[in-house]
Order: sequence, then structure tokens, then C-alpha cells
Amino acid sequence: MNLVQMSNYFLLFFLLIISCTTTFTHSKSTLKPEEPCEHMVLYFHNILSNGTDISNATSAKVTNGSALGSFFGMMVVFDDPMTKDGHLNSPPVAKAQGFYFWNNKDASNAWLAYTLVFNSTEYKGTLNIMGANPVVEKTRDLSVVGGTGDFFMTRGIVTLRTEEIQGNIYFRLRMDVKLYEC
Amino acid sequence: MNLVQMSNYFLLFFLLIISCTTTFTHSKSTLKPEEPCEHMVLYFHNILSNGTDISNATSAKVTNGSALGSFFGMMVVFDDPMTKDGHLNSPPVAKAQGFYFWNNKDASNAWLAYTLVFNSTEYKGTLNIMGANPVVEKTRDLSVVGGTGDFFMTRGIVTLRTEEIQGNIYFRLRMDVKLYEC
Amino acid sequence: MNLVQMSNYFLLFFLLIISCTTTFTHSKSTLKPEEPCEHMVLYFHNILSNGTDISNATSAKVTNGSALGSFFGMMVVFDDPMTKDGHLNSPPVAKAQGFYFWNNKDASNAWLAYTLVFNSTEYKGTLNIMGANPVVEKTRDLSVVGGTGDFFMTRGIVTLRTEEIQGNIYFRLRMDVKLYEC
Repeated sequence: MNLVQMSNYFLLFFLLIISCTTTFTHSKSTLKPEEPCEHMVLYFHNILSNGTDISNATSAKVTNGSALGSFFGMMVVFDDPMTKDGHLNSPPVAKAQGFYFWNNKDASNAWLAYTLVFNSTEYKGTLNIMGANPVVEKTRDLSVVGGTGDFFMTRGIVTLRTEEIQGNIYFRLRMDVKLYEC
Repeated sequence: MNLVQMSNYFLLFFLLIISCTTTFTHSKSTLKPEEPCEHMVLYFHNILSNGTDISNATSAKVTNGSALGSFFGMMVVFDDPMTKDGHLNSPPVAKAQGFYFWNNKDASNAWLAYTLVFNSTEYKGTLNIMGANPVVEKTRDLSVVGGTGDFFMTRGIVTLRTEEIQGNIYFRLRMDVKLYEC
Repeated sequence: MNLVQMSNYFLLFFLLIISCTTTFTHSKSTLKPEEPCEHMVLYFHNILSNGTDISNATSAKVTNGSALGSFFGMMVVFDDPMTKDGHLNSPPVAKAQGFYFWNNKDASNAWLAYTLVFNSTEYKGTLNIMGANPVVEKTRDLSVVGGTGDFFMTRGIVTLRTEEIQGNIYFRLRMDVKLYEC
């Protein structure tokens, strides 16, 4: 074995070590927030029943708050249409089914868990999401904790932005769905 | 270095590249729905309290629905036995502890989150599960979002099938628990 | 190609095979419960409103239990301070926002889901957590199912230990947060 061969062996060996090291590192460490493998923007429309006109309502209050105030603990169950643009009447591409509740006295902080249910020509399957929603912040990040169907075993982040609020009756959120395990 | 040696080096280098590429790909992409690393079948028995006879009940209504109907928003908390066959009186191998609520007017769609608590000679630990449950579909997939004990850090899919419904009092689901990170 | 060269090739090839094999194994199998990549200890203080004095309360009952008993199904929404030591009045380093409910008749078993919200100089971001909480056990493990911000895409285990209970008004838990994908 001459010197050239030896140096070639060392190079190969070095590459092998890099390869092995990368393998033993958990895959997560290679994930970057700004580089999702899939990015969808959906608009989340919530129409709360006002108790009289329920024809358009997509959500309803199930508890009346608590001793800590009429908002603290008030829970809402929803089955909301998701659209690809900000128009409530655009054809929904998914439903968001779940619940939220306020956990402070002034409706500035909520917590929610929901499933995005896709049943379109583009996607069939679900994304399961949970997290805190401090609505006074410009953007709020929640976790996509699992997926099924076309989203089998995925994970990711959902970023919510409030786009419009009409009293206690309607709000629209922009939802950036960023998946990192596709 | 002669030609044979060079071609050998190229072969090795090529294999290294393949190896590295595979490493950088997230592990998820190698997962296949039909190839779980663990597959269990459990039967989920839910006996709702009818308000008078509570001796056998394993679940109870905690909210009465909402302005959108007596089902929309009706929430049920449960502590249900899981058996290995479809018989309610078989010895339970786990408990399912959690809640579900209806999110439409006709009890055809629910959402649930629960923990499978195992405390048997076979398994000790928990599986945490959440997702939508459109009960009119033949099969429904939910996400196993985490595990503890013998199921430390696992993830997977749970597939639910309704096997029997007796009015508002009893239902039995077949639950296929498929784990992909074992 | 002489014999020495050949044996060297075989060695390299063997290392390659090991490398590839490791790659195809899911990363999870290399995780060990006793070796988290991050371990934090936080103290969880819950002060339930007694219905009259609400000035210090951090949580409130939103449902009154059910036909199965005054505890079964009783749900509590909380926005609790987390401290680095066991003193309620220490400066909070995070908030725990979420809910729990009892799922048996004697308040020995609860289920909870919550978000740890960090907004300090040390950490900004959230951890999302869910699982069963059989409070009669000395330790209970729940799943960290996702994270955002400084905890982007993490997963892990939270171990709860009850440290103090004062009637129905106050409890303090020690919470070991162990992350395995950092």
C-alpha cells in the first residue's frame, strides 16, 4: 500500500465517520423552522351562535365561564370551515373540528385542540393540533402533533394570526400549516 | 493507482453518498402505514350513565349540548375498560381515560382525546391519543401522539371501527393500535 | 489488487453496512429514558377558586361533575404559575395553561392537557403536554407531544409528583420535564 492509497483510505474513513455521526444525531436537529417540507395557508372561520340565529353558526358555547369571570373557563366547541382565501363563502377545503376555552378574565388568552379534516380531491386525511393561543400576540405557534391519511405520521407547527374579529360573533384566523416530517 | 482501484474507490464513494442521503432524509419517510412495528387489537366498551342506574356506567355526560342542539357540544368523560376480545365481561387489559364531545347536530361526528393506561403483566405504561371521530365512516384514524413506560416515546395511528351501538347507553369499538416508532 | 488492499476494502464495506443499518433503524430506538438531552425541574402551583375569594385563584371549575358523582367529570381550567423552587411566591418562569378533569368518583384519577408557556430571558416558546394523571401514584408520566420557539419540534416526557395538597384549594406538583429530541 503506497502513500496515495493510504491518503485515499483516510478520506473514505473520514467520510464514513461523518456519515455515522449524522446518523446517531436525532433527525430533529436537522430541522429548521424556516424550511418546512410542506407549507399550506388556510383561513379559519369561526361563527359563534348568538343563541337566537343559529343557521350560520359553526360553533357553540358549552360552558358559561366560572367563578373567575364570564370568560375564564368558557368553552366553545367548533366545526369550522377552512378556506384557501379569506372569504367565508369560498368553498371549504377542510374542516377544523375541536374546542377552545378562555383561560383568563378578559378573553385575551385561549387554549385549543382541534383536528383539520381534509376530504378533497387534493388531500384526504387529518392533522391533529394543540396549543396555547394568546390572541393578543400577533402570531401564535401551536404544535401539529400527528397526522393520518395523506398526512400519515407527520408533525409540524401551525402559526395563527387574527385577521378579523366581529364582536363575539365572528373571527377569522390565517393559519400557516408548516410540516417538517413529510 | 490503477484503473481497477479507481473504479473500486468510485463504488465505495457512491455507497457513501447513498448512505449519507438516507441519513439526511427524515426517518419518517421510511415508515409505511401497512408495516407498524407493533400492532395490538383492543375493544373499547363505553357504558353511558342513563342518570338512574349508574352501577355499571363507565362514562358520564358533563355538558348538555348547546344552542346548536342537544348533541352539538355535549361532552362525555370516560374511564372505559379495554378488552382483548369483544366481550364486555372479559378481563380488561387496559383502561381508556379521556373525553369526547359531539361537534354536530346529529351525533354523527365526535372528537376525542384519551390515554390508554396499561397496568398488566404484559405492559405497563400509557399511550396518548387524539383526533376526530366521524362515526358514520367505517374506519376512523386518530393519532397516537406519545407514549410512556413500555411505550416510551412511541407514536402511531389508532383505527376505530364501531362494532355495536345500543341506543345512547352502550357502544363498542374495535381499536387497532399501530405503532411506528417502537 | 493485492490481498492487503482487498482486506482494506472489506473493512470499509463492513463499516458502510453498519452505517446504513443504523440509518434505517428509527432514531427512537436510540433514545433512553434516563438520558434526556434536556432536563428541567419546575413546580406547578394550582390555586382553585373557592367561589368567594378569587383574588389569588389561578384556576376555576367549569363543570360540576356528573351523574356518576360530584368529582367524575368535574373539569377545571387553569392558568398556573411555574416556579423553579417549591415556593408559590417565587417569580414564575413559565405559565401552565390548560385543563384537567377527574374521571372517577373519588378524585384519585385525573386527565389533563396543557401548554407550558415560557416568556423569560432564558426561554421563549411552548411545550404541549397531555396524559393521564393517577394522583394516587407516586410518579405519573405524561407525554410532551410538541414544542414551539426555543422548543421547536421537541418531544419528551413529563413526570409529575404531588408535593403538597391543601384541601380542595391548593396543590403543588413537582414536574420533571425531560426532552429527548432537542
